[in-house]
Amino acid sequence: MRFDGRKENELRKATITKDYLAYAEGSVLIEMGNTKVICTASIEERVPPFLKGKGTGWITAEYGMLPRSTQTRKIRESSRGKVDGRTQEIQRLIGRTLRSVVDLEALGERTIWIDCDVMQADGGTRTASITGAFVALVQGLHKLYEAKQIKILPIKNYVSAVSVGVVNGEALLDLCYKEDSNAKVDMNVIMTDKKEFVEIQGTGEEAPFSRQELNNLLALAEKGNEELIAMQKTALGKLGKLIGASNKEESGGGMGE
Amino acid sequence: MRFDGRKENELRKATITKDYLAYAEGSVLIEMGNTKVICTASIEERVPPFLKGKGTGWITAEYGMLPRSTQTRKIRESSRGKVDGRTQEIQRLIGRTLRSVVDLEALGERTIWIDCDVMQADGGTRTASITGAFVALVQGLHKLYEAKQIKILPIKNYVSAVSVGVVNGEALLDLCYKEDSNAKVDMNVIMTDKKEFVEIQGTGEEAPFSRQELNNLLALAEKGNEELIAMQKTALGKLGKLIGASNKEESGGGMGE
Amino acid sequence: MRFDGRKENELRKATITKDYLAYAEGSVLIEMGNTKVICTASIEERVPPFLKGKGTGWITAEYGMLPRSTQTRKIRESSRGKVDGRTQEIQRLIGRTLRSVVDLEALGERTIWIDCDVMQADGGTRTASITGAFVALVQGLHKLYEAKQIKILPIKNYVSAVSVGVVNGEALLDLCYKEDSNAKVDMNVIMTDKKEFVEIQGTGEEAPFSRQELNNLLALAEKGNEELIAMQKTALGKLGKLIGASNKEESGGGMGE
Amino acid sequence: MRFDGRKENELRKATITKDYLAYAEGSVLIEMGNTKVICTASIEERVPPFLKGKGTGWITAEYGMLPRSTQTRKIRESSRGKVDGRTQEIQRLIGRTLRSVVDLEALGERTIWIDCDVMQADGGTRTASITGAFVALVQGLHKLYEAKQIKILPIKNYVSAVSVGVVNGEALLDLCYKEDSNAKVDMNVIMTDKKEFVEIQGTGEEAPFSRQELNNLLALAEKGNEELIAMQKTALGKLGKLIGASNKEESGGGMGE
Amino acid sequence: MRFDGRKENELRKATITKDYLAYAEGSVLIEMGNTKVICTASIEERVPPFLKGKGTGWITAEYGMLPRSTQTRKIRESSRGKVDGRTQEIQRLIGRTLRSVVDLEALGERTIWIDCDVMQADGGTRTASITGAFVALVQGLHKLYEAKQIKILPIKNYVSAVSVGVVNGEALLDLCYKEDSNAKVDMNVIMTDKKEFVEIQGTGEEAPFSRQELNNLLALAEKGNEELIAMQKTALGKLGKLIGASNKEESGGGMGE
Amino acid sequence: MRFDGRKENELRKATITKDYLAYAEGSVLIEMGNTKVICTASIEERVPPFLKGKGTGWITAEYGMLPRSTQTRKIRESSRGKVDGRTQEIQRLIGRTLRSVVDLEALGERTIWIDCDVMQADGGTRTASITGAFVALVQGLHKLYEAKQIKILPIKNYVSAVSVGVVNGEALLDLCYKEDSNAKVDMNVIMTDKKEFVEIQGTGEEAPFSRQELNNLLALAEKGNEELIAMQKTALGKLGKLIGASNKEESGGGMGE
Repeated sequence: MRFDGRKENELRKATITKDYLAYAEGSVLIEMGNTKVICTASIEERVPPFLKGKGTGWITAEYGMLPRSTQTRKIRESSRGKVDGRTQEIQRLIGRTLRSVVDLEALGERTIWIDCDVMQADGGTRTASITGAFVALVQGLHKLYEAKQIKILPIKNYVSAVSVGVVNGEALLDLCYKEDSNAKVDMNVIMTDKKEFVEIQGTGEEAPFSRQELNNLLALAEKGNEELIAMQKTALGKLGKLIGASNKEESGGGMGE
Repeated sequence: MRFDGRKENELRKATITKDYLAYAEGSVLIEMGNTKVICTASIEERVPPFLKGKGTGWITAEYGMLPRSTQTRKIRESSRGKVDGRTQEIQRLIGRTLRSVVDLEALGERTIWIDCDVMQADGGTRTASITGAFVALVQGLHKLYEAKQIKILPIKNYVSAVSVGVVNGEALLDLCYKEDSNAKVDMNVIMTDKKEFVEIQGTGEEAPFSRQELNNLLALAEKGNEELIAMQKTALGKLGKLIGASNKEESGGGMGE
Repeated sequence: MRFDGRKENELRKATITKDYLAYAEGSVLIEMGNTKVICTASIEERVPPFLKGKGTGWITAEYGMLPRSTQTRKIRESSRGKVDGRTQEIQRLIGRTLRSVVDLEALGERTIWIDCDVMQADGGTRTASITGAFVALVQGLHKLYEAKQIKILPIKNYVSAVSVGVVNGEALLDLCYKEDSNAKVDMNVIMTDKKEFVEIQGTGEEAPFSRQELNNLLALAEKGNEELIAMQKTALGKLGKLIGASNKEESGGGMGE
Repeated sequence: MRFDGRKENELRKATITKDYLAYAEGSVLIEMGNTKVICTASIEERVPPFLKGKGTGWITAEYGMLPRSTQTRKIRESSRGKVDGRTQEIQRLIGRTLRSVVDLEALGERTIWIDCDVMQADGGTRTASITGAFVALVQGLHKLYEAKQIKILPIKNYVSAVSVGVVNGEALLDLCYKEDSNAKVDMNVIMTDKKEFVEIQGTGEEAPFSRQELNNLLALAEKGNEELIAMQKTALGKLGKLIGASNKEESGGGMGE
Repeated sequence: MRFDGRKENELRKATITKDYLAYAEGSVLIEMGNTKVICTASIEERVPPFLKGKGTGWITAEYGMLPRSTQTRKIRESSRGKVDGRTQEIQRLIGRTLRSVVDLEALGERTIWIDCDVMQADGGTRTASITGAFVALVQGLHKLYEAKQIKILPIKNYVSAVSVGVVNGEALLDLCYKEDSNAKVDMNVIMTDKKEFVEIQGTGEEAPFSRQELNNLLALAEKGNEELIAMQKTALGKLGKLIGASNKEESGGGMGE
Repeated sequence: MRFDGRKENELRKATITKDYLAYAEGSVLIEMGNTKVICTASIEERVPPFLKGKGTGWITAEYGMLPRSTQTRKIRESSRGKVDGRTQEIQRLIGRTLRSVVDLEALGERTIWIDCDVMQADGGTRTASITGAFVALVQGLHKLYEAKQIKILPIKNYVSAVSVGVVNGEALLDLCYKEDSNAKVDMNVIMTDKKEFVEIQGTGEEAPFSRQELNNLLALAEKGNEELIAMQKTALGKLGKLIGASNKEESGGGMGE
């Protein structure tokens, strides 16, 4: 039993609230225990310069934390005048992940801006951001689809993310902040509904980890992502039926960053 | 009758939700119609360099907008690498306003950080920020008072803010975005529970305005602020009883910025 | 009697020197007592991106202080790498004010850059900047008019600005630095030659102020602005006769920022 | 056979040249095929503010690329005025990796600065940086040890890094740039001489990857890292004998970032 | 005869006005033809960190141009957020020059800030800045001397600067902007009242120059500097008598930058 | 005899290694004693905005130092977020020098980027950069010539640079760091193979210098540059034969910065 009563392979109570904000094309509040993240998808009818005229779209992500999302106030990045390394890493991760499940050619020359803003942070904000942002993204793309600006919903797979780690010698699913601070190994695992990996990032924060530990963590992550994707399906309802349409006419074109 | 059914001297539906976030010393969600702002108060046990050793405290405010708080996505200020002029103006206004009702000597050598983050913007975000931030500030200071770190709640007056303006020749209270965009004159009025002014900022955006128009607008603002302060009182409940204690032992020391 | 011998409703000795610098299309040195500001107007034959192709012009203002304009040396903003909040507020105020009296459509697709550089600061630099910049602006626009690039001088009204405040319980006109530092209430009032308000910015720096105090201050400001506009008329001479021509064919289009 | 004649599990020709620069406490040129990185270790007798007085040291890493290390000139980050997201990610990775094998308490209150500067980039610059920087770090720490400023060489394990990936359906070790650009899956694997993982970062750049693919890649990475650590041992010679001394009196204290 | 009627070895009409601004410890307006520069000296009772506790003072210079000092408006460096290379070069040159004639040990642990702000630029602004700044510096140091904070006026030599150049095959003294733009060779020469060189900066802008051309230019520069130092002497009056006192007890310590 | 055994008019051991890096159009390692600089030339098929459509090319230079090129670690300019004044001065000097010997019209509308990166710094890095960069530039331009993109090699003269200085009363050629730190006078002299000057920058760091001292230094510099140009000729081999072709059809057009 964990300090909050969970079993080692148990997610925190998770909810996904759609249409959380009024103006965004897609918007979601995702809660994983006390972690709360607002995810929005915004459509822009142009692509960054390096893609101009190439007939393909782009997805870019930004991540922020409200100053008092954390236990002690965090300095506002706009005041510091720059985005720190951790934020950039997370932004790049979210963008890369979402691009990997979208058929960017079918999207056409437009950019989807994903914004993940953490209202409350109790561990796992980057994984919650990905899980929530996927739902906002589908909503946003569905707006384009309804408006007949795209022929299919250009999403190849569901994708979700969860953190796992080794704390006091035990492999645990979905670490909260207190567990995360004591983790010897910390891993974020991003998977599709096909149980394939989109990204694995594992770090032996205090000590290296063995192949066996890796295997245990991946098993937990698989279980967690399965449950999260089930929640995404529930949240998306009939929109989810449109996912995968683009696979039949797979574009195959990879997207470097 | 206004386009949303209000009378010219009617506020939008307003709510103040206390304890909106888990970690801040004070936190409030204020809603004025579709405008939604999260206001928090954070306590830091030191003052900025220019006040070190002077036996007085400080209150500073920061203001931000979520990128999709607006109809079209607004570039994140952290990405642009700087805070724009409008944001700075609002931050300075909120800080100056709150300092004017706090006995900074009684606060002692500590800083209260006020953060106002706009989740949804439908006009009047700076005035809503002030009205909400006051409640968060009282909550935050009350934490210090309960912990016996200060002897009195060092608040001299209630303070709230509201916008008024001339739209199509008519003076209106509490403009929403659509009205604000068509206003010939736009004014923000900040008042105490004594019906005195803390700040008046009136601009003839399209055309200059007469003394008569000014008087009409100030009358509307007085009515609006009266109602908002009543709401603050309800939200604060018995905490509100502690306000004004410092007036008996008025410090008198002014605070330049 | 005030410490410098003035009556409470008396301006400081003011002079406006035209053609102060050799190269600018319009240039003025304005002196209000020891406050000295160089104001220039420069013409650029294009508009900012947000106005491109809209058939309307723009006026933008920048404000700076020489490092030794003040009693103790002020760090150069170019060295600090950014313009501080106070400077931005002033720049926005000057620009907004001048745009409000110009027929931007009649100006055509060009930008007038206003630069106000404070050589010596003894209070009231922002109001002196506005009063002086108006004269430089008229000069600059007259150059365009003479060159037949515009058909009328696109100025609707004269505009000037003055500060007023409550010091030691008394309402005073045109505060110098020493008075300003001791003001309980500080107000900048910008008015046209029609005695209408373009902008009112009043702040209870130390304590809130009553409606009666507001009225007293506005009366002083009206007197001060009347005298300043008389000085502008003298300085402009026959150029001033061309002001107001655009009113007959009023464009009516407002200009947000 | 790969395009450059290597087998799928074969490293590029690798060399480690010690004492490459004259002034640094530790300095190495590492070459992995055409990839050439200069790694230096510099000792500073103080720690960052967040560690002051805690009796523990710090290791921080910076990474840069010469503008013409790449096929087409890359803009100098100092000219752009900021370090981009990729650079920050790499810097954080190198620092985290090296800290994980150092006994920071035994190091004492000092900082080791690791600089990795890429002279020529043909893929795998971040993994080469780690492998080379470890050798420079040992050299630098050995200088402290010889000067009797530390009692043991505070290194717990050897650590090296290698990239692996899936290209044209085949798992390959040590990708050069041409292979990397065509990789469906790209993974960086950092391991100790105990064959444990310090960090795994795997990305399905174009398509998700299966558990089987993951296993194949990890097997290649294990082989590659074994060979690289053997090279580090050769390069370090008798200095390498001092590694592991701190394990007997393991401090156990973890190091967050 | 030159286009403005001067002989090839003739300075432009030059004036030095002392006490040009009210608040600075030293302040001068220098005019060289249409070039007008305000130079001030400000005293700060501390030194930069690298000199703390070394018993020696420092002189640092900053240079700026009003946006409309030039024929077409120059973007304000504070708006661009950085000081450009040309400005930095000039700042470094002024600071280095003035430090070379001051006995920094006799100055004690304080910094003199020199500010040179160009109101009007018609060529030769950096040399005019040096010539004017020297006078402001003497004034500023004299304030310290009068207040008995320093025992001697710590100035070793007079120093002035002038530009020379080759235009249409002819060596000319004190180039105005029009001549400077057509110069094949451009040289700034800084000299003391002992006819020694403090700095020579010569550039063959369009074509290299011979030893003979160099000699001709240096002869002109010597004549120009002699006249400028005579003007400095006149401007300083009896303050000038105190210059050179420190030479008798020459400290000898060099000052790197 | 100097501390390193050299005569006063003797260069340090110098070598120029061509083709030092694999990808640049021109690349050189220049060593002057312990000073080592990598110089590259990169070709870009466009010019900066101010030259667009003018039928002329451009040469721009950037300079950097590896953090451990120096005795104590130098903060990376990319981390500080800006290029310091010294770096800018050097960059401007290198660019100006190389432009002065290139026929920019014959180059056509393209930019040559020169990068000088100091691996090891023992004095004279800016002069070594110029001498080495010239060779890299010729190599780069020769690539264009071979590809028949330009008709002649658009180089008018050889150009090299050397430092001279007065140390302990004696004029010395090619100062190393230890000598430079003790120099009373420091001068960089840039010359062509015609023994003409491209740039002279002499500074009396500690004390002014006489005409006689100047003459002595220039004589040493002439000898040093003669030897360095001989080395450039050897390094360039038959490429050197193409230099000067453009002189016959001299364009004459000067290039301001």
